[in-house]
Amino acid sequence: MAEKSHQEGHPTKAFGWAARDQSGVLSPFNFSRRATGEKDVAFKVLFCGVCHSDLHMIKNEWGISSYPVVPGHEIVGQVTAVGSKVEKFKVGDKIGVGYMIGSCHSCDSCHDDLENYCPEVILTSGGTYHDGTTTYGGFSDIMIADEHYAVRIPENLPLDGGAPLLCAGITVYSPLRFYGLDKPGMHVGVVGLGGLGHVAVKFAKAMGVKVTVISTSLKKKEEALEHLGAHSFLVSRDPDQMQAAAGTMDGIIDTVSAAHPIFPLIGLLKTQGKLVLVGAPAKPLELPVFPLIMGRKIVGGSSIGGMKETQEMIDFAAKNNITADVEVIPMDYVNTAFERLLKGDVRYRFVIDVGNTLKI
Amino acid sequence: MAEKSHQEGHPTKAFGWAARDQSGVLSPFNFSRRATGEKDVAFKVLFCGVCHSDLHMIKNEWGISSYPVVPGHEIVGQVTAVGSKVEKFKVGDKIGVGYMIGSCHSCDSCHDDLENYCPEVILTSGGTYHDGTTTYGGFSDIMIADEHYAVRIPENLPLDGGAPLLCAGITVYSPLRFYGLDKPGMHVGVVGLGGLGHVAVKFAKAMGVKVTVISTSLKKKEEALEHLGAHSFLVSRDPDQMQAAAGTMDGIIDTVSAAHPIFPLIGLLKTQGKLVLVGAPAKPLELPVFPLIMGRKIVGGSSIGGMKETQEMIDFAAKNNITADVEVIPMDYVNTAFERLLKGDVRYRFVIDVGNTLKI
Repeated sequence: MAEKSHQEGHPTKAFGWAARDQSGVLSPFNFSRRATGEKDVAFKVLFCGVCHSDLHMIKNEWGISSYPVVPGHEIVGQVTAVGSKVEKFKVGDKIGVGYMIGSCHSCDSCHDDLENYCPEVILTSGGTYHDGTTTYGGFSDIMIADEHYAVRIPENLPLDGGAPLLCAGITVYSPLRFYGLDKPGMHVGVVGLGGLGHVAVKFAKAMGVKVTVISTSLKKKEEALEHLGAHSFLVSRDPDQMQAAAGTMDGIIDTVSAAHPIFPLIGLLKTQGKLVLVGAPAKPLELPVFPLIMGRKIVGGSSIGGMKETQEMIDFAAKNNITADVEVIPMDYVNTAFERLLKGDVRYRFVIDVGNTLKI
Repeated sequence: MAEKSHQEGHPTKAFGWAARDQSGVLSPFNFSRRATGEKDVAFKVLFCGVCHSDLHMIKNEWGISSYPVVPGHEIVGQVTAVGSKVEKFKVGDKIGVGYMIGSCHSCDSCHDDLENYCPEVILTSGGTYHDGTTTYGGFSDIMIADEHYAVRIPENLPLDGGAPLLCAGITVYSPLRFYGLDKPGMHVGVVGLGGLGHVAVKFAKAMGVKVTVISTSLKKKEEALEHLGAHSFLVSRDPDQMQAAAGTMDGIIDTVSAAHPIFPLIGLLKTQGKLVLVGAPAKPLELPVFPLIMGRKIVGGSSIGGMKETQEMIDFAAKNNITADVEVIPMDYVNTAFERLLKGDVRYRFVIDVGNTLKI
């Protein structure tokens, strides 16, 4: 019955994969989407990244999930229809949609092109849209989106490796810009070499910044230095290495979402250095105050980016040949992919080839 | 013997009050100071504020004290002699000396007029000077200081209420400027209405900022609103009041040096708001990460200010008739004053009338 109502609620038939309960197991799901409004674009989903926050949502780990959950918010697709007042796109265009798909358009944040900080921001998956319906994400055949929340994908950007930039990419690009860690010659640390971290290394390098990868173990050293081209590598559990690097960094992008000590990271910062957290541990971290005061250092946060900046990020990526390193998988591999993601067994992002492998 | 060697080590006889051990009890103390070097000024101490960090030092609560400790780093005095290369001052000038009395002059911080963040900064009391001797503070009859670490006291600034500005004043003035919380029309919270907090209210008001005092109890409401002229008052333990003020502040100057929850304070900030800590709790605070990320908020620190900015602060204070509210006491009242300070029994700063009451 539940599926029937989803199917009948809107005029556009849609098909995807959804989690039905806290087990988080995904299975095929028939539902419907709204008609293409005058400011909307309809598009066929081609690729969709698999992000760690999808994992939180399908298992209701944040306590905000409403089942069924169709995950997916790193979406690249091709426009199939446009509303009468759409200005940015035409049928056939390649577009990208990320973590948000709506906002209020009237608050200060919206006026400042920071829709991502709008108190009424609507998430692409698991949000509540203006019409009261739950939003369904990119693990589906077609989507409808207000053109404001879609970006143009440049011609030369590969669509599979480009998809994760819509969330992972903007999540690290925006703080590099906002916190002024984008000046050539600066030294920036990247903590955690996962989906976010490996893209942070690429963006920072392209900005002319010296990049040091900071990891709990030596395991990722070769990968960081030789494959990703980081300038140096620090094992955070080695006090001698950390001491030797003390006071050398202008900033750090910390992508770790598990609880972890930030005292050693603050020690790596120069006077007035900035530790930016983009991963959100569920429990509070321990904040040592003395080193903040004695060095006028800051700890800040950042969440994705506004639509204007997301377009800027995608254009910058295309210009600098930046994509995520991805493992492209078929739709029916997604449950295995989530299991592997939980174990950190992916370099660095799964991307579902939705366009070719999602079969009704 | 110990006192004798202090007395004989340098050519200039000096007299003050010192703590001799962890009891923190002060008593009269004969010692000596260096000769007036070519870049030095010698000055008679007129007034000296009693700061909470003096209390930490006399009791060795930071574990860095070397007895005897002559405290005092909010010092106003009158020049009695100048070295041959002194350019800023002449005999008879009124000058001020604060928390630091030396630095390396060669690091980036020193070059940027941020001597306060120099790794080799020398504290006015309990530091180790270039010549290897322990520095003795302003609870004494005369002092010698490199002119670089002294500021000119404007003619119209009262000397007693002006003395605490050298530490308490610059400690709150500098972050208001650096973190951009000094724009007319902004809304800034001040946590803790003590020596630092009450001056923060005055400076912020003079900058044209709307000021809300945030306190754990209603006790200080009348004082905050009617005496200090704060625009509003919030009881931090009242969830309804805190909820009503959520998301309204551009920044907060948090002067509390005891451990305290910062989650409610972060909730008061607007998107991109700044919580600035200038009090240093001994233990780490609990830092909730989600609200930082979701609002691109920051938690930062700040420690006093550079000499250039300290002069700017004193000039700003004089121009805007800002002084600390002080209780002027005689030198021999100092032990009682420290006892009362520990209990928070002072509005808002004790200042010792050293010039008239220190008797050999």
